[in-house]
Amino acid sequence: MHVVVNAAMSADGKLSSRRREQIKISGSEDFERVDRLRADSDAVMVGVGTVLADDPSLTVDETELLPQSDDGTPRQPARVVADSRARTPPDARIVDDAATTYLLVSGAAPVERIKALSATDAEIVTAGETRTDLDAALDVLEAAGIEQLMVEGGGELIHSLFAADLVDELTVFVGPTVIGGRDAPTLADGEGFIDEFPALQLDGVERMDGGVLLRWSVPVSEPNS
Amino acid sequence: MHVVVNAAMSADGKLSSRRREQIKISGSEDFERVDRLRADSDAVMVGVGTVLADDPSLTVDETELLPQSDDGTPRQPARVVADSRARTPPDARIVDDAATTYLLVSGAAPVERIKALSATDAEIVTAGETRTDLDAALDVLEAAGIEQLMVEGGGELIHSLFAADLVDELTVFVGPTVIGGRDAPTLADGEGFIDEFPALQLDGVERMDGGVLLRWSVPVSEPNS
Ligand SMILES: NC(=O)c1ccc[n+]([C@@H]2O[C@H](COP(=O)([O-])OP(=O)(O)OC[C@H]3O[C@@H](n4cnc5c(N)ncnc54)[C@H](OP(=O)(O)O)[C@@H]3O)[C@@H](O)[C@H]2O)c1
Ligand SMILES: NC(=O)c1ccc[n+]([C@@H]2O[C@H](COP(=O)([O-])OP(=O)(O)OC[C@H]3O[C@@H](n4cnc5c(N)ncnc54)[C@H](OP(=O)(O)O)[C@@H]3O)[C@@H](O)[C@H]2O)c1
Repeated sequence: MHVVVNAAMSADGKLSSRRREQIKISGSEDFERVDRLRADSDAVMVGVGTVLADDPSLTVDETELLPQSDDGTPRQPARVVADSRARTPPDARIVDDAATTYLLVSGAAPVERIKALSATDAEIVTAGETRTDLDAALDVLEAAGIEQLMVEGGGELIHSLFAADLVDELTVFVGPTVIGGRDAPTLADGEGFIDEFPALQLDGVERMDGGVLLRWSVPVSEPNS
Repeated sequence: MHVVVNAAMSADGKLSSRRREQIKISGSEDFERVDRLRADSDAVMVGVGTVLADDPSLTVDETELLPQSDDGTPRQPARVVADSRARTPPDARIVDDAATTYLLVSGAAPVERIKALSATDAEIVTAGETRTDLDAALDVLEAAGIEQLMVEGGGELIHSLFAADLVDELTVFVGPTVIGGRDAPTLADGEGFIDEFPALQLDGVERMDGGVLLRWSVPVSEPNS
């Protein structure tokens, strides 16, 4: 599986304000690029923090970009939520019928929440005891035919993916604004690294929308000999 | 006065790890650029958080870059610390005799600390009641002949300078690594902005040291008519 993390951050590395309110960081050129990247992906993933903060639908706007289903309708990429405790609201847009949705829960998800979500079209994948085991969950997605997985955040999920060495590419739009705030979400939150830091390789730099798009890849680490 | 903020951050906007330990983010090309920028500045400023974390000397390495003093020795730029409560240790490198140092304290600085620091060569500037008033303190520095002020961080000081609309330029080296951590220092910490966000203009993009140097300026806001 190929995992591409994509996000827009302010010049100081924030994904949103400390109130976790969505801030317009990029513009139309980046929006179009993100739409194309979604269309080129088999699934688009977020953490439940982003579902609760933004209620995104994660569908592709330009449906001409999409492949056709057997019935001739455009096929939206699947949607994936990392959601250990099944906190996704059953009326969230991400579990509507616009596309397949996988909820990656853990053994700690309360039965009644699972039940409520089973009434939606979402498929429930259980991996991990108290927190979603991303490595195992992504294996399940791969077995379901997901080859390219795009991750749209937020910073908690992105950090865990780097910590589990699951990221292949990172594309970040850096926008012309300062959000600030020691408690504002950043591109990679979580515990943070201390001794060893994931290394990146800069593959591309492109100015757009008053800011710059940075394309990083994660060099494959040498196997132990 | 012209205020240039300069910092090195990871691809996810961090200045150091959550342990506030200095991390190698850039390389020799960026180091040389920073050294030249220091040499071209009349003073180099940090917050006391950086003094306590890193004990920097902030002097220019390549003394050939420096103008000569009257006695023929190279003249280092002055050093400035925003330090409301005079917490700078009297044996910190930043108050050694390598250059003039201004400590910007507030009325809340304990008398005994001021006394201990008066034994060093540092000049004490008092501005503000409980916290250093940066606007007033920078006026004092300007009156002392400081025309170009370079600010090297950390994120608390940088946020306050943006909040007080004192920043003219922001140069940020974005390095090829992920530091992560919701508690790690970022380029702009502080309270953070909520409704209005300082706007930047991207003046330059330059690849170096495996990362990229972004040159932003702060467009002058229109005076009210
Ligand atoms: N600018 C952008 O491009 C962009 C993109 C996306 C989001 N955002 C912003 O980012 C903010 C939300 O980000 P966030 O960091 O709070 O939330 P997030 O990363 O979207 O979701 C984090 C949650 O995912 C769940 N999760 C399940 N398994 C996990 C695992 N193995 N590792 C980590 N998390 C796991 C955790 O909740 P459980 O423990 O309950 O499972 C965790 O709290 C919002 O303000 C949103 O607007 C911005
Ligand atoms: N990568 C880089 O380029 C770089 C550069 C510099 C620092 N760093 C890292 O950044 C970290 C330190 O950053 P930091 O944010 O903790 O500290 P900081 O910004 O260097 O200093 C913050 C302190 O300055 C004092 N201060 C005085 N007046 C202020 C004002 N008006 N507004 C804000 N602060 C004022 C405050 O202490 P009082 O209230 O006691 O005055 C405040 O706690 C360290 O880990 C260091 O390694 C990295």
